[in-house]
Order: sequence, then C-alpha cells, then structure tokens
Amino acid sequence: MGYNVAIVGATGAVGQELIRLLGQRTLPINQIKLLASSRSAGKTMMYRGQALQVETLSASSIDGVDIAFFSAGSERSRQFAPVAIEAGAVVIDNSSAFRMQSGVPLIVPEINGKVLRADDRLIANPNCTAAILLMALGPISKLGHVTRIIASTYQSASGAGAAAMEELVEQTRAVLNNEPIESRIMPHPYAFNLFSHNTQVNADGLNEEEVKVAEETRKILDRPDLKINTTCVRVPILRAHSISATIEFEGVAPEIATIRQALEHAPGVRVVENPEANHYPMPVEASGSEDVLVGRLRKDPSSENAISLFICGDQLLKGAALNAVQIAELLHDRGLISPSDHKEPCAPANGV
Amino acid sequence: MGYNVAIVGATGAVGQELIRLLGQRTLPINQIKLLASSRSAGKTMMYRGQALQVETLSASSIDGVDIAFFSAGSERSRQFAPVAIEAGAVVIDNSSAFRMQSGVPLIVPEINGKVLRADDRLIANPNCTAAILLMALGPISKLGHVTRIIASTYQSASGAGAAAMEELVEQTRAVLNNEPIESRIMPHPYAFNLFSHNTQVNADGLNEEEVKVAEETRKILDRPDLKINTTCVRVPILRAHSISATIEFEGVAPEIATIRQALEHAPGVRVVENPEANHYPMPVEASGSEDVLVGRLRKDPSSENAISLFICGDQLLKGAALNAVQIAELLHDRGLISPSDHKEPCAPANGV
Repeated sequence: MGYNVAIVGATGAVGQELIRLLGQRTLPINQIKLLASSRSAGKTMMYRGQALQVETLSASSIDGVDIAFFSAGSERSRQFAPVAIEAGAVVIDNSSAFRMQSGVPLIVPEINGKVLRADDRLIANPNCTAAILLMALGPISKLGHVTRIIASTYQSASGAGAAAMEELVEQTRAVLNNEPIESRIMPHPYAFNLFSHNTQVNADGLNEEEVKVAEETRKILDRPDLKINTTCVRVPILRAHSISATIEFEGVAPEIATIRQALEHAPGVRVVENPEANHYPMPVEASGSEDVLVGRLRKDPSSENAISLFICGDQLLKGAALNAVQIAELLHDRGLISPSDHKEPCAPANGV
Repeated sequence: MGYNVAIVGATGAVGQELIRLLGQRTLPINQIKLLASSRSAGKTMMYRGQALQVETLSASSIDGVDIAFFSAGSERSRQFAPVAIEAGAVVIDNSSAFRMQSGVPLIVPEINGKVLRADDRLIANPNCTAAILLMALGPISKLGHVTRIIASTYQSASGAGAAAMEELVEQTRAVLNNEPIESRIMPHPYAFNLFSHNTQVNADGLNEEEVKVAEETRKILDRPDLKINTTCVRVPILRAHSISATIEFEGVAPEIATIRQALEHAPGVRVVENPEANHYPMPVEASGSEDVLVGRLRKDPSSENAISLFICGDQLLKGAALNAVQIAELLHDRGLISPSDHKEPCAPANGV
C-alpha cells in the first residue's frame, strides 16, 4: 500500500533532493515516476537502489499519479498542474505560479499546516527564503504582536538551479587559474562576488524575490497587515540561504531568553549559539541539514521593541524539497489523503 | 619640498595600498620610510619605480618623520604612535586604538574633515565598514533628521588582512579539488561559506565590529543619540565590503529622487543603478575603485519614515588606505601641516 508519486522536474537540483528524500523518509510509496523535459528523458536516476528512467512530461504521463511534486518552473506548473489535478492527483507545487492565488494553501507544515483540508488538491510550496525565514519567525510571532520585519538575505546559487551552482564552481576555478570567466546563467560575475537578486525590479525598486518573500510571509502567517522590508542578495555560496533579520513588535519585545526557549522547542529549528567560540549559523553547517539553524539572538540596540537574529537553512531542503515532502507527509498523517484513494489510473472524471 | 612619510605596517594589505596611493596621488613627498616588524625587515617594496627596503619599527626609526601612517594593529599603535608624535610627526592611525578617545579626531574627509585643526597630531582613521557606510549616510543625513540605522554587512577577507585573503583563496582551491581545508586565520571554514564577524561577542550579543560601526558612526556624524543596529557578517569575497542599510528619519523620509541627487553630487560616491540590467553595486566593481558605490535606493515598504539602499566600497581603499591618505592631503591642502614643518630630524622638544 503506497502512493503513486510523480516528480516533475526530476533532474533539477530540487528534483534530485525530492528523489533522495522520498527514498529515505516515511511516506509510503508504491511507484515513483520521474518526469522532465524531452531533453532529459531517457536519463536514469537512482531511487532506493533502483535505476529509474526519466520520462518526458506530457498530459498522459501524469495519469494514475496520486501525488505530483512539481519543480520545473512556473510555466510548466501552469500548463500541467491542472492536468494532473484533473487526472486525480494532489499537486504540491514548488513554483511561484499559484502561491498567491486565493484558495490555494501556501504551506510550511510547522507554521500553518493546520489550514490544509481534505479537498485541497493543489498546494503551493513557498519561496525558499520565505520558508526559511518563517521557521524562525513563526515561533517568535506567537510571543507577541509582530508589526514589522527588516531582513537582508545572503542567498546561495542553488536557488537559481543546478546550472547556477555549476557556474559558480566553474567561474571560481577560472578566477583561481587567472582564466577569463563566462556568465551564462547569472547576469553578473559570481566568483568572489555578490549582487542584488537576479529577478526583475519593479517600479518601487523591489525585485521579484523581495516581493515574493513579503507577500508569502504575510499569507503563511495570515497577517495581511504585516510590514516587511527585505533586501535579497546573491552570495557565492552553493546551497544554503542566510537571513539577517530584525523583528519589531507592538510594544517592548519579548525577552531574548523567552525567544531562545521558543526556538529551542520549535520543530525543524536548531539554535546555534556559542558566543565564546563565535559559533553561529553558517551555510556549511546548514547545507544538508533538515533543520533550519537560528542564532545571534539579541535585543536590537536601536529599539526596545525589536530583536535581531541570523537564520541559515538549506535552500534545497527546507527551502524546497524537504518542505514539499513534509506537506505530503502531513496530508497523509492527517488522513487528508490515503494510498487507496487513487490506486488505479484515474479517469479525468475522478479528478477535482 | 615634500614630507618625510613613514608607513608602519608597510608589508600588510593596507600598507601595500598606502605605498601605491602615495606614489600615485598628489601629496608632496620628500622621503618614504617603510616600517614593519623585524620579521618583514629587509624585504624590498616598490615605490615610484624605486626599490625601498623595509626597516624594523623602533622608537628611533620614526625620527625625522613628518607624517606617520600606522596600520599594524592596535598594540603597535598604542606603543609607537605616542613616540612618533613626541618626535614631531603627525600620526594617522588606521587601528582602533585611539578612535573613540576624546580629543582624537576620527575622520572621513568628505563627511567631517572640517573638524581637523592645526594642533591635531593624532588623527584616527575609522573602521572600514563605518567609513564606507558614512560615505552614503553623510550626504543623506543632511536631507533630514536621521534617527535610526539598521544595517547588515557583507564583509570581505581583506578586513582581516592579507593572510585572510590568502586563506580564502587557498581554501577555495582545496574545496574545488576535493582536498581537506585548514583554517589558520579565520575561526571557521571560509570557502563557499559565511559567518558572523570574527570578533569578540559582548554580553549584549554584539560583536566588536558591530560596536565599532555604531560608536564610530555616531562620533563622525557628531550624533551621540543616533540609534544603530548592525549585523556584521564575513562573506567569501576578497576585498570589497557591502552594506544593506535601512535609514529611518524623524517624520516622512525624503523623496528617493532627492536622495539620489544628493548622492550623485557627493564627492567619492558613485550611484550605480540600472534596474533594467539589474545592475547595482557589486564587490567586483568596487574593488580597486576609489569611489564608494551606492544603489538600490528605494522607499522602505515597511515604513514611510525610512529608505533602504545598498553600498559597496573597497575595504582597502576608502575603508582604510585611501581614507588615511585623504586625511593627510586634507591637512596639507588646508595648510594645517606643511612640508617645511619638520624638514630636519626633530628633537623630542619640537614635538607636541
């Protein structure tokens, strides 16, 4: 008894982590289907010691799937998520296509998993930076009325995909060898450099990433009035995002000891604070970790209403694949889906 | 007619830039003396096409010097700056030893050069992050009453000296070759990693760098009441510091167009803003630039009283050597010192 699972975008950086996590974790799986563009079709990838062949994504390839993880960009999600739902699947979508759509739950299980219902067939996985920020912000926001967040990010290459990670490695090697560098994926040199997040800038001077972080954080916390100012920056790091955040409250901020205790008890969070060793959250320690690391908890010396902290999470895990798998696990654990729901290939009429 | 100049710490990352800048710029120089620890004595370094030998720093080595640039750490400054002053030199000190001492001017020429007087014999060069921040903050603070600054930094290896830059390069090479890495200078792995600034953390959870930035910014702006919250972070960048800053005003913040115009007219500042090309200040473009780059000027979406911006400056230039040379140039240009002051080796009695 298990689910028929499809991974759309199986060969990408997030897709690879989805395959690995589904192979290691507890969601019962009957069959797994790896889907990608025709360019990647025919490749084989390992799942639980078994070589699986990647198939071309098409409307028919999603037939008979119970849970479809989409991680192949917004355009692919817009085109094929409705097809998958129509064919009876629950879609967990890592793209930004549906995140802000009314009626589509946008979920970080530890923070707002409770809003999921049995008739949700399309569930959005949040922006990586928003998800990592929320792992700290969620527990803290229960300790007082948070009014404003000011954050600056240190975002890794993985957020722009496997090709961006390769570009960072290749360019860095070239710089060390005094060879010319080539930027194919990123708009600027990436080796030993950083730059404003490589998404479109709107009339207010905010890039798309900054808008997403703000909007999605508000939706997940169900706090449409929350004021958020983020500065999103790419740094030459491979796969963990860091966030320097200041959180303001209505009135005097809770005590740091209270905040530390709340974070120490928060699932999926690990407090990393050793002032003597100057040891706080770092990408090298967050990379590969399912926990989001939080530290540098301190009073904001510029306002008694605020605190500051530093957060570090694996962009491919809690920022993407892990959170998506946890959404499926939550649906299963709460009985909102069950393996028997769609054991046979479903006719479109069975879909919602 | 020129000054007898000494560079204390001539072989360090800042010392090397001091030699280069003094060779290229306009301060009239009669003779230049390179001083360092006995470990570096005997090395030769090029100045205006001439090979100069590094001498061991001692009390007698500073005799006959008109201007002494100190960049060899606080301990060396504490020991030898008074000796140099006693021997008749004006000391421009890049260490943090005297910066917050009452009566010692702490100077960014473009911002508070006017406070210098003829009887100043010891002038402190500010912390690199403070100097770079102030290049943007100074002009902006003339447009309204700034009440609070919230900043997160992206600090380069050069701030920890030439050995740290080498460590970053060596570790990165090792990681790319799948070889083990060794941390000798920095407390944590540096290749493809970032970490909280490697200075001591106080009881409030602030590291020394964060305290320096706040205290020195207040002193330079002569605003003891200014509220400042910084998060100082080391990123794997070689020699330019970046700062993501939010600046709050009493009442509604000035218009972005007004701020942009003020920065465009500010000496030593270059506004880098091309939203279409997603082109803003970057370390690769700030490195080697005497200008501090400023961009991403925008209203803070979380408060009508605030604006945000991104600043990027060469840590070794405006953050250290360039600012020190500019202090000497300012003293000379304003006639506060003159080459004839101390043409002959001075007896202690001539000193102040």
